[in-house]
Amino acid sequence: MDTLFQNITVITMDPACPVMEHAYLGVHGEKIVWLSKDAPEEPSAHVIDGTGKVLIPGLQNTHTHIAMTALRGYADDQTLTEWLFGNILPAEAKMNNDLVYHAARLGILEALASGTTSICDMYFHSPEIARAAKELGIRAHVGNPPFELGDGFSMEDRSVLETEELIRDYADDPLITPTIGVHAIHNSNPAVWRWVNDMAERHDLPVVLHLSETMPDVESSLAKYGKTPTVALRDSGMLARPVTAAHCVHLTDEDIAIMKEYGLSVASCPVSNLKLASGIAPLARLKEAGVNITLATDGVASNNTLDLFEEMKLSVLLQKNLTGDASALSAWDALTFATVNGNIAMGRGERCGRLLPGYEADLAMLDFTAPHLNPCHNVISHVVYAAHGSDVELTMVRGRTVYENRRFPGIDMAEEIRRVNELVAKYLA
Amino acid sequence: MDTLFQNITVITMDPACPVMEHAYLGVHGEKIVWLSKDAPEEPSAHVIDGTGKVLIPGLQNTHTHIAMTALRGYADDQTLTEWLFGNILPAEAKMNNDLVYHAARLGILEALASGTTSICDMYFHSPEIARAAKELGIRAHVGNPPFELGDGFSMEDRSVLETEELIRDYADDPLITPTIGVHAIHNSNPAVWRWVNDMAERHDLPVVLHLSETMPDVESSLAKYGKTPTVALRDSGMLARPVTAAHCVHLTDEDIAIMKEYGLSVASCPVSNLKLASGIAPLARLKEAGVNITLATDGVASNNTLDLFEEMKLSVLLQKNLTGDASALSAWDALTFATVNGNIAMGRGERCGRLLPGYEADLAMLDFTAPHLNPCHNVISHVVYAAHGSDVELTMVRGRTVYENRRFPGIDMAEEIRRVNELVAKYLA
Repeated sequence: MDTLFQNITVITMDPACPVMEHAYLGVHGEKIVWLSKDAPEEPSAHVIDGTGKVLIPGLQNTHTHIAMTALRGYADDQTLTEWLFGNILPAEAKMNNDLVYHAARLGILEALASGTTSICDMYFHSPEIARAAKELGIRAHVGNPPFELGDGFSMEDRSVLETEELIRDYADDPLITPTIGVHAIHNSNPAVWRWVNDMAERHDLPVVLHLSETMPDVESSLAKYGKTPTVALRDSGMLARPVTAAHCVHLTDEDIAIMKEYGLSVASCPVSNLKLASGIAPLARLKEAGVNITLATDGVASNNTLDLFEEMKLSVLLQKNLTGDASALSAWDALTFATVNGNIAMGRGERCGRLLPGYEADLAMLDFTAPHLNPCHNVISHVVYAAHGSDVELTMVRGRTVYENRRFPGIDMAEEIRRVNELVAKYLA
Repeated sequence: MDTLFQNITVITMDPACPVMEHAYLGVHGEKIVWLSKDAPEEPSAHVIDGTGKVLIPGLQNTHTHIAMTALRGYADDQTLTEWLFGNILPAEAKMNNDLVYHAARLGILEALASGTTSICDMYFHSPEIARAAKELGIRAHVGNPPFELGDGFSMEDRSVLETEELIRDYADDPLITPTIGVHAIHNSNPAVWRWVNDMAERHDLPVVLHLSETMPDVESSLAKYGKTPTVALRDSGMLARPVTAAHCVHLTDEDIAIMKEYGLSVASCPVSNLKLASGIAPLARLKEAGVNITLATDGVASNNTLDLFEEMKLSVLLQKNLTGDASALSAWDALTFATVNGNIAMGRGERCGRLLPGYEADLAMLDFTAPHLNPCHNVISHVVYAAHGSDVELTMVRGRTVYENRRFPGIDMAEEIRRVNELVAKYLA
C-alpha cells in the first residue's frame, strides 16, 4: 500500500466503534484499505508513526467565499449595511482574476493546513477558484450564483458565463464540482430561478444559496412574495435538486419541516452570524427535525479565519446556551456536522466522511502531545473543545498527502503570501 | 539593556498611538526602557529580529481554576448539576497536593505558551498552585475561598489554613499575590463574610468570588437574603476592597450601578458560560456603565482550554449578536479587556498592561507570517479575530523570557505531561 499510519488513534465516525486506539490505517490509491489493531502483512511505501497522534476525517467547509482572504480584517465592527455596501462590495469591485486566483490559493492553503479537505465556494471569477483548488488538491464545489439586486438578468451575465465555463472544464472531475444557485431568494427573481432549475436539471448540478441569513432577508421575501424564503424556494421548484443552504438563521417550524422533507442541507456559519449580528441558527431544532446540519466559516471578512475547529466548538456551545440545556448537542454532534454530514451535503456521503476501509482517504492528523490536549479523558471532546486548526500536522485528500509535517510539499508559502500582499496593495489600497 | 526587539510591530494599547510599526522595543531588568522608530545607542545583550512579528501586552486571565487541567474533557455535554455534583466534585475530592501541583504546572505552561502572563486563580491546595506559579514565572493571584454548602465554617477550615499560609509565604512577592473571598454569596454566609472582610482589611488582600453566574445563583440569594448577590455583597461590606467577580451573567441595572460605584472588576468567562448554559454576560451594558471588564477562561473542565484569544474573539462577537448591532464592541475593546483592564483588576494598572517605557515588561510576541494572518489590513483585528494562542512564539513576564521559539527553556514538556497523565491515571481513574 502507499501509506500506513501505525500506532495511531483513529476517530472513525462509525457509531459502532467511534474511536480505535493503537491502530493501523492503510491507504492505497485514493482509498482507505486497512484499519485494524493489527499491522497489515503487505508492506507500505510510506510509514507514519502515529504515536501521540489522532486521525480524523477531513473537515468539510460547506460555505466559503475563499478569495475573501484578500479582505481579511478589511472592515470589522461595523453594521452589516456599512460593512457590505460601504466597504466589501466596493472593494470586491476592484478585484480581478489575478487577485482572486492568488487570494483563493492562500485561503485554500489555510484551509488545508487546518484539516479542511473540502470547500463549497461561492464567488465571482469562479474559474480562477476552481483552478486554484485543482492545483492545490482540495475538493471544491465552485460556483458564482447570480447576485441580482434589480430585475436585470441576461444570458450575458458574468455568473452565467462562468457557470458554463465551469461545466465545460470540470465535468466528472474527481475534485472539482460545478454548482449553480442564486445568491439568495430575496435578491433574485423568478427569471433567474427558471434558469437555475433548467441548468441544474440539464447538467445534474447541486444548488447553493444563502437562505434566511438575517431578519431583513426574511422580511423582504415576505413583502415581495408573501412567503418565507424557504417556502419561496420550495415553490420555485429548486428543492428538486440537492441544495446546500448557507446560514438558515431565521426559520419557522414550516421551514424546518420543508428542509427535512426535501433533504436540504444547512451550512451553518456560527462565527459569521455572531459577527454580523445576524442571529443564532436553531441547530438543536434542526437536529431534532432530522435536517442535515453542516458547518462553514463563510468568508474570512466576517470571521476572520477558515478554521473549522472554531465552528465545531461554537456551534454546539451556542445551542447549549440557546436552549438553556448544557447537555444539548455534544462534541460528537459537532464532529458529525463537520465530517459525515458535510460529505452528505456534498453528495459523497456513501464514500467519504468516515475513516473506514472502502472510504476515500480524506483525513487530518492532529498532534495530541501539546499541553492543551493533555491529559486526554476523551479524544472526541478534545478534538472539538480543545484543539485548533494549528494542531493539524498532516492533511490528505483522496489519498494524496497535500500537507505534511506542517509544510506543503512543493509550495513556497512565503512567496504565496508575498504575492497576495503585493496584489492587495496594488488593487485594494 | 537586556533584550531588544527590532523592526517589530508593537501594539502599545496607548490610545494616542495604539500601533507602532518597524519599532525598537528594549527591556532592562523588569521594565520596558525603550520604544522608538529609532534604534537605541546602548547595546543589548539579546537582540530579537521582529520582522513579521507583533508584540502585544501579556494577556490577563482573571478567573481560573488552573489545576483543573487534570479534568480537561473529564465530563462534557451534561447539565450543570450532573456535571458538577455527579462528576467534577467527586473527582476533585480525589485530588491531592501532588496532582494539583503538577496539573497546575501543566496549566501554567499552557497559559504562558498562549501569551498569558497572569492568572487569578481559585482552587484548593492553593499553596501548591502558588509554588507552581512562582517556579514557572507567571504572575498569579492565588486563593482558596471557602466553599460552604451548609453553615459550617470554622477557623480549622482548609481554606482558612491555606489563606494564612499564602499570606505568610508570599507577602510582597513580585509575582504571587494571596487573595481572599468566598466561593459565592449564595453558598456562603455572614460568618464567612465577616472573616473575609477582617482578613482582607488586616492583610490588604484583594477579594475574588463567583457572582451571579447562573439564574439559580441569583434566585437562591433572593430567597435567602431578599437581595441580588451584588446587593448582598455590597451590604456585607466586602466591596470596600478591590473585588474581581467572575461571570456576572445575570445583572440588574442596580447591580451594574453598584459595580461601577465601588470599582468592582468583572471577570467574564464567555466560553464557560455558553458551555454550562449559564447565559451571556451583558458586557455592552457593563461597558456603557463604565465597569471594568476583564476576560477569563474559567477552569478547563468547562472550556476546555486556557487560550484567551478565544475569549477575546467570542466576548465581542456575543455582544454584537446580543445587542443586534454588529458595531457593538470592537477588537480594540476585546484587547483592552484582556490587557489594560485585566491589570487594573489585578491592582497594577499603573505599571502593567501597556507596552510603553516605564511599564513592566509583560508581553507576548506573535508570528504574523502564517497564512491565516495575511494579508494584514488591521493588526488589532487580526490579534482578536484571526490569531490563536498557537501564534505566540515568545512570552515575557516582568522582563524574564519564560517561553521563546515556542519552547520553555529548562523545562522538559514531555516529562511534565507524562507526570500529569501518570497522576491522573493513579488518582482519577
